[in-house]
Amino acid sequence: MPTNLVAALDIGGTKIAGALVDGDGRLLLRAQRPTPAQEGAATVMAAVESVLAELAGSPLWPGASAVGIGSAGPVDASAGTVSPVNVPAWRDFPLVERVRRAVGGLPVTLVGDGVAMAAAEHWQGAARGHRNALCLVVSTGVGGGLVLDGRVRPGPTGNAGHIGHISVDLDGERCPCGGRGCVERIASGPSITRRALAGGWRPAPGGDISAAAVAASARGGDPVALASFERAARALAAAIAATAALVEIETAVVGGGVAGAGEVLFAPLRRALRDYATLSFVRGLTVVPAVTGTDAGLVGAAAAASLGTSGPGGTAGADGGLS
Amino acid sequence: MPTNLVAALDIGGTKIAGALVDGDGRLLLRAQRPTPAQEGAATVMAAVESVLAELAGSPLWPGASAVGIGSAGPVDASAGTVSPVNVPAWRDFPLVERVRRAVGGLPVTLVGDGVAMAAAEHWQGAARGHRNALCLVVSTGVGGGLVLDGRVRPGPTGNAGHIGHISVDLDGERCPCGGRGCVERIASGPSITRRALAGGWRPAPGGDISAAAVAASARGGDPVALASFERAARALAAAIAATAALVEIETAVVGGGVAGAGEVLFAPLRRALRDYATLSFVRGLTVVPAVTGTDAGLVGAAAAASLGTSGPGGTAGADGGLS
Repeated sequence: MPTNLVAALDIGGTKIAGALVDGDGRLLLRAQRPTPAQEGAATVMAAVESVLAELAGSPLWPGASAVGIGSAGPVDASAGTVSPVNVPAWRDFPLVERVRRAVGGLPVTLVGDGVAMAAAEHWQGAARGHRNALCLVVSTGVGGGLVLDGRVRPGPTGNAGHIGHISVDLDGERCPCGGRGCVERIASGPSITRRALAGGWRPAPGGDISAAAVAASARGGDPVALASFERAARALAAAIAATAALVEIETAVVGGGVAGAGEVLFAPLRRALRDYATLSFVRGLTVVPAVTGTDAGLVGAAAAASLGTSGPGGTAGADGGLS
Repeated sequence: MPTNLVAALDIGGTKIAGALVDGDGRLLLRAQRPTPAQEGAATVMAAVESVLAELAGSPLWPGASAVGIGSAGPVDASAGTVSPVNVPAWRDFPLVERVRRAVGGLPVTLVGDGVAMAAAEHWQGAARGHRNALCLVVSTGVGGGLVLDGRVRPGPTGNAGHIGHISVDLDGERCPCGGRGCVERIASGPSITRRALAGGWRPAPGGDISAAAVAASARGGDPVALASFERAARALAAAIAATAALVEIETAVVGGGVAGAGEVLFAPLRRALRDYATLSFVRGLTVVPAVTGTDAGLVGAAAAASLGTSGPGGTAGADGGLS
């Protein structure tokens, strides 16, 4: 029986996924429930417990020595609580303590989903071998996580790398977060669609207005669709260059649904980076697509487990290393 | 005789300062030369050697066990070289090797001047006791350095915290660095003056057009002068909030000549921060004035010496701690 397994939880607004993950990042067993996002706090927790119970029913379970959680944010790893925007009933919900109780006291580590993705890419993906990297998820929102000096750095509350809500346009549009000109407000999938529609882009019959549909038009040469991706790319480039100037990263790994647009996004992103990443020590910065796919959340949560324990009685383990 | 002394060098476009610094950050002996900034590389180095020779002539010198250098940037701590913008003859100048030779092989650590200021504020000033902080110098330029997880983090090349050249206005004015909408282009002293003059502000008889003169007008209620500081404050706030979202800092320490404007800068800065620092985990962020004064460069260079050695055969010592 494999030992040194980690139980991983990936908690989002749509699904709650769990897995038993071995030391090589393989998912040996999976369990999943839809997130009852509009239900009460206890019902959401019951879904988490149901996932954990399914994992615990496996003969592999006694090999599990820790639990890692990657959750939609905001999270507070120092308090062990989560307040996912898309799960209204969970506000400062004591997830770490509740999970610890459900698994009989195993150590539990909590990080934000952007940090989990960075941990996955650093362990198994495009950030592997890099000492300093930013990993971004560009999707319905824009999130991220940082690798500094060879280790994922979640920050005191597990939210570091939160690139979606830095302002690259200080006089820009208000963002639902309260800020102005946030990267997410310019570069997220819905923002790309919104800008394309405002410019006169119309979806094909069938009415698909996803960013992927805008990308398809861009590949066909539609100037409005191209311009919308160009604008998103500039916002991402300014934010990536800012990160490089602040913490000296050598690469930015871009994943999430919008990254699926491929060169429609990456070509203008690389061009724009030459405009914003001008200082001698950031000029060598590369931008590459993420490698880990839909399992990134689980793989990253497993990796995060080795960063240390979270919540009351623990620390976010910023000084810990990945296995 | 005190032992565990550090020889500190603060290298700028105007002066080359040196000191012997004890373990409590006291400057026991100083030496200084004007920077022959427009001369050849050898002449500039001769001024550095002359400062070192003066220190070495002291009976205290045998107590010195290391050299710390804070230099105007860009620097490359991994290569041990400096290319200060205001010293044209020094491009990739091998300062670490040359200083090491001049001091008989003592270990030498090089960091950028923003990192040195952060090291000084963390050791002796307003960042003391903080585990995560950004320290800014707002002056002719805008620089900075980071404290992460209780330690100054210079980054691989000694330039981390370079907040002056992150873009907070992606469609903004071109910056001499090649970027657009850089913080320095909006918030530096000369930028504050330039914007005030463009708005119709005129200096008092005597013709002082420093940012301090604009600040004096602002204190007198001049709306153009007030607006120019307000704009600088917004750019700084957006950049500080971005840093907080990226690496979770708890405080920003602002020093440099422009910070001498006091509440003319700090009041709008705190207001603007409420506009940009909106996420739950950054809302507690404070902004405070720097405490260390003109000696910050020397104190910080001394602190940096304990971060490790730089240059060929050494490392920038990102994992090292401050004494």
